[in-house]
Amino acid sequence: MYDVAIIGGGPAGVSAAINLKVLGKSFIWFSSQPVSKKAGQAELIKNYPGLPDITGKQFVWTLQNHFEGMNIKLCEEVVTGVYDTGEGFTLLAKDKNYEAKTVILCLGVETVKPIEGEDEFVGKGVSYCATCDGFLYKGKKIAVYCTDKQFEYEVEYLCNLAQTAYVFPMYRGYEIKSPNAQIILKKLTRLSGDVRLKKVEYAGGVAEVDGMFILKGALSPSTLVHGLQVVEGHIAVKRDCSTNIAGVFAAGDCTGRPYQYAKAIGEGNVAAHSAVEYLSKLK
Amino acid sequence: MYDVAIIGGGPAGVSAAINLKVLGKSFIWFSSQPVSKKAGQAELIKNYPGLPDITGKQFVWTLQNHFEGMNIKLCEEVVTGVYDTGEGFTLLAKDKNYEAKTVILCLGVETVKPIEGEDEFVGKGVSYCATCDGFLYKGKKIAVYCTDKQFEYEVEYLCNLAQTAYVFPMYRGYEIKSPNAQIILKKLTRLSGDVRLKKVEYAGGVAEVDGMFILKGALSPSTLVHGLQVVEGHIAVKRDCSTNIAGVFAAGDCTGRPYQYAKAIGEGNVAAHSAVEYLSKLK
Repeated sequence: MYDVAIIGGGPAGVSAAINLKVLGKSFIWFSSQPVSKKAGQAELIKNYPGLPDITGKQFVWTLQNHFEGMNIKLCEEVVTGVYDTGEGFTLLAKDKNYEAKTVILCLGVETVKPIEGEDEFVGKGVSYCATCDGFLYKGKKIAVYCTDKQFEYEVEYLCNLAQTAYVFPMYRGYEIKSPNAQIILKKLTRLSGDVRLKKVEYAGGVAEVDGMFILKGALSPSTLVHGLQVVEGHIAVKRDCSTNIAGVFAAGDCTGRPYQYAKAIGEGNVAAHSAVEYLSKLK
Repeated sequence: MYDVAIIGGGPAGVSAAINLKVLGKSFIWFSSQPVSKKAGQAELIKNYPGLPDITGKQFVWTLQNHFEGMNIKLCEEVVTGVYDTGEGFTLLAKDKNYEAKTVILCLGVETVKPIEGEDEFVGKGVSYCATCDGFLYKGKKIAVYCTDKQFEYEVEYLCNLAQTAYVFPMYRGYEIKSPNAQIILKKLTRLSGDVRLKKVEYAGGVAEVDGMFILKGALSPSTLVHGLQVVEGHIAVKRDCSTNIAGVFAAGDCTGRPYQYAKAIGEGNVAAHSAVEYLSKLK
């Protein structure tokens, strides 16, 4: 069991990882991308103290250089669920489980809004993990919502399992080859059903389905961690970056404004120290 | 009137200043030293993301280089009082007054504990400002407590004004030449009196005085800002770095642990953004 699992590869996650390494803790660090794609998009950063007039790309490169120089490695998997086991946390990523005593959420700000009805049908037809739940829908009708080309191999996998897959690719340049795929280039508007998901509604149509897969890099915090307190879209944290769940900490944009590199880096540091303090009390 | 006055030249102050400059606000930035002396004492910093394996001296030099490159200047004066005028704040430094709409306190952690009785007699015989209050004690008996050689010229000034000055130098290599000075190399234990300060007690003796000057780089936060809420030695702040006084923000070690560069830099950023948000509501 790891001491800490960090979820998110943006500046907050980098800061948490560097600090945990210095503090001598075992940790696993998940990110769907090698360092945050979003962090690298800034044209010019003038206000990160110590690195004047740096581009987003240079900034990301500098952070990567820092943690790689400390022999810290990223696990490039998407975590699709965090479960409190009482003795720690189980994290589900692809078809593997990971165990950690504490979790630091560095999820960034979700830019993909949840679909109406999404939260209602999680575990009742809505899944975020193709390799975990795909086999449940062998020979059935499914919808697949995919936000990024990097998840396209999972779309193919699902299409090949299903009888029919209504695929909603939310990116340019999709290349989905499965004969079972029906590509729908419309906006998804609503998920509906009764106890379980039954219908996927989109602009100008409805598809009847047995299940649906939502493949995106960032789950909403409350979808990822059941029972996590979220206020106006941000994870509620105390000054020490602790959340309402003992052992779960959060840092960076996901905890609220200002959305700033320095703030994220500062909170990653604080969350790491708070996690270490929490671990010291477990013993 | 400045938009913001920053007090303190450590990493939190640097971060606040850089951000205010980027955000286009007018500000004055006070520090008794060109960048924090304390910040420069770290042997090796491994956990400030983006600057791997840097010494404290290099770190301070890098920060200085950053803000100087943005044409930001430090005002190397010790602020000895912050007064809420209702329309903003008046800051007293040496014999000058400065006006600002908001204040960001980046005071660090006070390493010099207050003397017993110090808080009780502030303004009743205890002063922190030689050039402001020295003339009140012309031809009288005073005590002078000085923590750093950099304030020695003020000690000389006070000794030359007074009839007798009991001087407590708290540093090595003092060179006080005034014939009115009586050097006492003992630990100060207590200040006492009735309505006003009357006696300065030290290990093995008592000096009767009309007044006392305490010359140190860092005043305790509640001495500096009347009415500021301090909990267990740290300024109480919310997540946005606001204090219990509207318009007064705090960042860095003075707000609590962990005492970390990244945390201080992050909070300086947050405090600057919060001050700007506060200013926008004043208009």
